[in-house]
Amino acid sequence: TLPTSVRSWNPRFMDKLYATTNPIGVLSELLLGLLNGNCHVFHVSPVLSLIEMTTVRELGKLFGYQADRCGGITNPGGAMSNLVATVTARNIQFPHLKEQGLAGGPRLTLFVSEQSHYSFIKAAFATGIGSRQVISVPCDTKGRMRVDLLDGLVRASLDRGEQPFMVVATAGTTVLGAFDPIEAIATLAQTYNLWLHVDASWGGNLIFSRKRGPALLRGTYQADSITINPHKMLGVPLQCSFLLTREARALAQSNTAEAHYLFHEPDGDQDANDYPVDLGESSLGCGRRPDALKMFLAWKYYGTDGFEARLDRALTNAQYLTGQLRKRSAQFRLVVEDPASLNVCFWYIPLAVRYDQLELTDPTEFRRRLGEATRSIHRQLRQDGQIMIDYSPLMVDSVQLPDFFRAVVNPPNLTVVDLDFIVDEIERIGAMLDA
Amino acid sequence: TLPTSVRSWNPRFMDKLYATTNPIGVLSELLLGLLNGNCHVFHVSPVLSLIEMTTVRELGKLFGYQADRCGGITNPGGAMSNLVATVTARNIQFPHLKEQGLAGGPRLTLFVSEQSHYSFIKAAFATGIGSRQVISVPCDTKGRMRVDLLDGLVRASLDRGEQPFMVVATAGTTVLGAFDPIEAIATLAQTYNLWLHVDASWGGNLIFSRKRGPALLRGTYQADSITINPHKMLGVPLQCSFLLTREARALAQSNTAEAHYLFHEPDGDQDANDYPVDLGESSLGCGRRPDALKMFLAWKYYGTDGFEARLDRALTNAQYLTGQLRKRSAQFRLVVEDPASLNVCFWYIPLAVRYDQLELTDPTEFRRRLGEATRSIHRQLRQDGQIMIDYSPLMVDSVQLPDFFRAVVNPPNLTVVDLDFIVDEIERIGAMLDA
Repeated sequence: TLPTSVRSWNPRFMDKLYATTNPIGVLSELLLGLLNGNCHVFHVSPVLSLIEMTTVRELGKLFGYQADRCGGITNPGGAMSNLVATVTARNIQFPHLKEQGLAGGPRLTLFVSEQSHYSFIKAAFATGIGSRQVISVPCDTKGRMRVDLLDGLVRASLDRGEQPFMVVATAGTTVLGAFDPIEAIATLAQTYNLWLHVDASWGGNLIFSRKRGPALLRGTYQADSITINPHKMLGVPLQCSFLLTREARALAQSNTAEAHYLFHEPDGDQDANDYPVDLGESSLGCGRRPDALKMFLAWKYYGTDGFEARLDRALTNAQYLTGQLRKRSAQFRLVVEDPASLNVCFWYIPLAVRYDQLELTDPTEFRRRLGEATRSIHRQLRQDGQIMIDYSPLMVDSVQLPDFFRAVVNPPNLTVVDLDFIVDEIERIGAMLDA
Repeated sequence: TLPTSVRSWNPRFMDKLYATTNPIGVLSELLLGLLNGNCHVFHVSPVLSLIEMTTVRELGKLFGYQADRCGGITNPGGAMSNLVATVTARNIQFPHLKEQGLAGGPRLTLFVSEQSHYSFIKAAFATGIGSRQVISVPCDTKGRMRVDLLDGLVRASLDRGEQPFMVVATAGTTVLGAFDPIEAIATLAQTYNLWLHVDASWGGNLIFSRKRGPALLRGTYQADSITINPHKMLGVPLQCSFLLTREARALAQSNTAEAHYLFHEPDGDQDANDYPVDLGESSLGCGRRPDALKMFLAWKYYGTDGFEARLDRALTNAQYLTGQLRKRSAQFRLVVEDPASLNVCFWYIPLAVRYDQLELTDPTEFRRRLGEATRSIHRQLRQDGQIMIDYSPLMVDSVQLPDFFRAVVNPPNLTVVDLDFIVDEIERIGAMLDA
């Protein structure tokens, strides 16, 4: 398996939002393999359950939650955390739906930015809400939700007799790495009594960077739930995703099925604010891999400072790459001039359309040529096998952008030499195809 | 973490349906940690994706599927596989619901045995179907679905104007380890056009035992989908669950959200029967841990014969334990006289009610005393820390049985010495509490 597999530890693996792991990550997987533990009921994995609860509350604190009040669990991936959040938002607000189901009731609607992750569409398929009820709010040119349009969209939904129940703020979009204005969204969530979920799967990791985190993530304390995936920016092995909730019992309240063969009655009294110790009651599944251990060990070993150093290095690299592309502005164009985090998105401009007026006279054709160039260069890059960098289309303010490169400047072992090489290679291949 | 954790490698860890893993299991976790791969799109984990597809089809063959036609994916746990199966059953039969959602449509109903796994209740919460629409079919005294009642229940649901869409046959129930008659259920599934899902999370592993598998699992080839968890009986580390489908494209058809940033258009033509190579399209999540590798390596190393030897040893152990309990029939009573697989369920009968007529004169009080004895002995066992064995209540043919012990005779390193010790200990503690 090893020699023929994709080497995620190569610094030029910039294809996805995860990168290589590290020795602590590998050791933590080894430890999980040895223990073969299961964080569904406390008594079979008491230590691992406590580690999960501790890590959840430490993360919650960073996001401004009350440490003795918040809760959460890990889930196998951010999409799963988002699915659990969607189910929980619905079941907490409309508990009778757990038994009755949606048939015969009003249409429930949720609001996401047009650049939010597709897991909310999948969640709509899975939860029976239906993807038509996922209402897409346009983004500005930087990829942030246009909150000025949100209010009108919620009202329109109410006017149609629907029942809005949830709004998602994305902190770090998948393609552009943009951050929705959480505080402004929280205000509207309060007005309309919507569950506020912050999908910080990607950008939430920047909470560890004092330089960038607080500004980008302001307002998370107002969220009812937050997704954060340390397997993305922090080098924790796949998968490690946390769903945090402001109230400790929200997930169990929503998701328990009271399976008495597995979850026995507790001996003592339980307070309404207590963290439910049988973590499986909070999940949509049964058995649970103790993924929190991986974050716990990484945090212990590298510390908050170690995480911060890694993130700040990555942010500097992203700025360097942006600068290099700006310097060659004839050949390259940035999708966002000043990216908020680690996603640097850009087009190569083919020679044939570089100096003429096509962009003004026939913008559709101009866009088509840009998209075509991206895909051709990408095909060559993949054949060469030196660089893995993905491409993507995108909707911005309801306009479809042509395919562009998305460099995820996340690998911890990435240097300016690699970044120069990448820009040079794309330009070289582009010129070759131009000829 | 190690010294204070529950030792799942102890042969007397018989609390759950999983047991210890083995060196190959630990190595496979180490390898996954090193690779940090992701089986969502083919190009980032081509080898791991091929391994997953190969393992899926090899398993499919064992269950009687056509190897060049079947498909499937791994999911993080059996409950998740069952959830994906439920969503898929619905979306394949009613594709318009993906967009429209359930509101305004008819009530969808699914049919499970009263002893089926609670993941279908959780699935009903999550999918918006509602737990009231999960119709529970009574079981016979051995824990098998009473198919004679299924027909009437489906008709009654139709008469209420509901839309039955799925029936679940459990192959290896959680508590008793019973097997529903798959063939008889398949016949009714065909009559009423229901999606047939076989939840073989636990018992499906017996497909590797020529002695027991074929008889218990007859008819699986007729299933639209099958769940099997090699992390239970085969020593593969948690988690490793496969959802197999008779038709290769069923899962992708149901679950893809066409996220173009991630899943690009394939270069060549694709046949309707082709296995979709970007496995993430088939899942409810996004990123996917390549769990199939763990089963692949275990199968390569231990072989079908190695798995069979392990299972047959476990079956022999279960028979031995059953025999020992039968020999002490004054003190112990089996819930099922002749268990079908590895679950041996029994009560300790307290001295005070052992020789009198209470069972005949006041059966409710008799049952209460049995349940109480189980819980008291269990509390002492847990304090002693020598044996981990769980207890459970159960509904049988709509009658509630009092709590009893469930010994899962699965650990590969379990010997008759351990089994004797367990029976002796329970009797010793029981006698102590009797006094």
